[in-house]
Amino acid sequence: MKFIDEYLSDIKDKGLYRELKFFNRPQSKYTSIGNKRMLLMASNNYLDLCNDDRLKDAAEKAIHTYGVGSGGSRLTTGSYELHDQLEKKIAIFKGTEAAILFNTGYMANIGTITAIADKEWIIFSDALNHASIIDGCRLSGAKIVVYKHCDMDDLQEKIKVYKGNKRFIVTDGVFSMDGDIAPLDKIVKLAKENNILTMVDDAHGTGVLGDNGTGCVEYFNLKGQVDIQLGTLSKALASEGGFVAGTKSLVTYLRHKARSFIYSTALSPAMIAVSLCSLDIVKNEKERRVKLLENSKWFQWELRKLGFNVLESNTVIIALVIGNAEKTIKLSEKLFEKGIFISAIRPPTVPEHTSRLRITLMSSHNREELKYVLDKLKEAGMELGII
Amino acid sequence: MKFIDEYLSDIKDKGLYRELKFFNRPQSKYTSIGNKRMLLMASNNYLDLCNDDRLKDAAEKAIHTYGVGSGGSRLTTGSYELHDQLEKKIAIFKGTEAAILFNTGYMANIGTITAIADKEWIIFSDALNHASIIDGCRLSGAKIVVYKHCDMDDLQEKIKVYKGNKRFIVTDGVFSMDGDIAPLDKIVKLAKENNILTMVDDAHGTGVLGDNGTGCVEYFNLKGQVDIQLGTLSKALASEGGFVAGTKSLVTYLRHKARSFIYSTALSPAMIAVSLCSLDIVKNEKERRVKLLENSKWFQWELRKLGFNVLESNTVIIALVIGNAEKTIKLSEKLFEKGIFISAIRPPTVPEHTSRLRITLMSSHNREELKYVLDKLKEAGMELGII
Repeated sequence: MKFIDEYLSDIKDKGLYRELKFFNRPQSKYTSIGNKRMLLMASNNYLDLCNDDRLKDAAEKAIHTYGVGSGGSRLTTGSYELHDQLEKKIAIFKGTEAAILFNTGYMANIGTITAIADKEWIIFSDALNHASIIDGCRLSGAKIVVYKHCDMDDLQEKIKVYKGNKRFIVTDGVFSMDGDIAPLDKIVKLAKENNILTMVDDAHGTGVLGDNGTGCVEYFNLKGQVDIQLGTLSKALASEGGFVAGTKSLVTYLRHKARSFIYSTALSPAMIAVSLCSLDIVKNEKERRVKLLENSKWFQWELRKLGFNVLESNTVIIALVIGNAEKTIKLSEKLFEKGIFISAIRPPTVPEHTSRLRITLMSSHNREELKYVLDKLKEAGMELGII
Repeated sequence: MKFIDEYLSDIKDKGLYRELKFFNRPQSKYTSIGNKRMLLMASNNYLDLCNDDRLKDAAEKAIHTYGVGSGGSRLTTGSYELHDQLEKKIAIFKGTEAAILFNTGYMANIGTITAIADKEWIIFSDALNHASIIDGCRLSGAKIVVYKHCDMDDLQEKIKVYKGNKRFIVTDGVFSMDGDIAPLDKIVKLAKENNILTMVDDAHGTGVLGDNGTGCVEYFNLKGQVDIQLGTLSKALASEGGFVAGTKSLVTYLRHKARSFIYSTALSPAMIAVSLCSLDIVKNEKERRVKLLENSKWFQWELRKLGFNVLESNTVIIALVIGNAEKTIKLSEKLFEKGIFISAIRPPTVPEHTSRLRITLMSSHNREELKYVLDKLKEAGMELGII
């Protein structure tokens, strides 16, 4: 396969070759690679629940009671009472009539978008939407109209141009690589005025944003006003899987039409039990997200004081933009040497010339640890001529 | 969303409405729904390992050591040493240089096909390939040339018509709803003669077919001759996830290019540990698959003696074709009343007018249990005028 060898040689030349790093301890604020202890500043485990004893107990109990694999797809032999309980609990959490589980957020997007839209549809899609939204849109065959990132004037213009009665707007709630929040209030207003469906993928808001941690719909006080709410169980909720919350009809429809739901083995009971438990923790331990968001504000402020180019963020995702891919890797490596794990994000995950460190906080990080990271970022940033 | 209500009303009229049934015990040959004990004849848990104590211990140990969720994508913070071990072990199992994990078989197909093929490619695809292969082909933008199910004359004709140096043939190893095996020896021969890549999705062969249980490539003695081997960990291996096995270059390429790999949270360490353990069991307990395949032969024979229309199968998937969707549901319901769980499979999962019971055996089923099923099938089949 010559084209493969050529591709690999090309990305090596461009400094875009990716190596995996393997942890040998749980995903918590401290983990380790080989014998090296690492302060983790790059995880989506925002509430630091992946190694929480209550979640581990829930998983172990479920394994004891229900075994390991689910053994079948949801419509054949893979549905357990736990799946039913979790779908109902997600609906309550999100304030909708019903919810449906998918194996991953990727599959939730692919399955939902293709179940709704076909080539008769027009989809308005934010320029920085997640890859899984883009893939879902492409696979649907719909006319895809990309609007400038969070630019409501541009969206409004495009809504005027692309008319029809089969249209929806799809957006990330929180943008995974920039950390900013979609202007959902304005999107919903535009959608209502123009009779357009709305769909939001709140992978990074779920468990973090809003007074009850239910995500960006709550953050904007838009309960009942977004037609299709996607979310994930694998980030703040420390488990596996994605979901869609909405009306009973929508959920029943997806159960019949979403191919990624129909044609895949159901999630294991153990991970379902973890999600059930972590939803309770999100509900009961507000202090985790309060501290998290406070720390994020403070940390961004300090980074800017040091002279770094930090994108505006009201979430726990902090994009420290370097630009050059190789320099980004070097900065990440220097921090790694100091025991700090921050992922370097390069094209194609982000646009060309916007390579960055994607820093994420956990609710367990304390100021002392964050100050250590700031010190090391300052040192390395100066050495590399970034600041 | 009026189109949704119309769709739901339409499928109710057509007898294609689907209800979920929820188990409250593990996926083993006996499970239960509510208070009703069910003999399970519909699971993909072919080796009856989902409730195996060794797998449960492996999962619990991993949870204790590594926590629950993986916390990140494979390229950021979601790779653990366990993932590395499993990828290496799969490669050894499949007899390839390397392997790469995906969250599901669906994502393995979507990610791999789109990473390889674009609109410059021609894909020859079996008419009965799994939905995830079809979706992968569609999303790739390649020219899709569907050949008649397992028809090598038709494939050869189409290879002659559709020429080019960017072509691959993709097929299921074992067809999930018919239970027959692709003529992989002939496909590989045709591919070699015409310089075409080959890709096989051996979801239902892995752990079952071949002297060592490694699947249909071994079954046909074709080691090293299939370019891209997909498989799943969620069926015979009683865990979660899918994988691709092939050359080191292929795997490295997919790590960089397969969007479903890049943009999804990694599988949880617990389920990785389960797969590591079940691969050992497949290797060491040949008697499970020997009994399974013997029982399948015998059971098919007995079904045909009763007058049922049973497709030819050398696997553990037995398609008892009824045709009419409503009658298929009724047969399934009558068996359900007798404590036998067999899924009715209807369009769109199978072509119109080929609704069927999809019967699958587990290695733990004994002749007494199978005879009971035959008796009840006979009774219900006669009542419904099927036999």
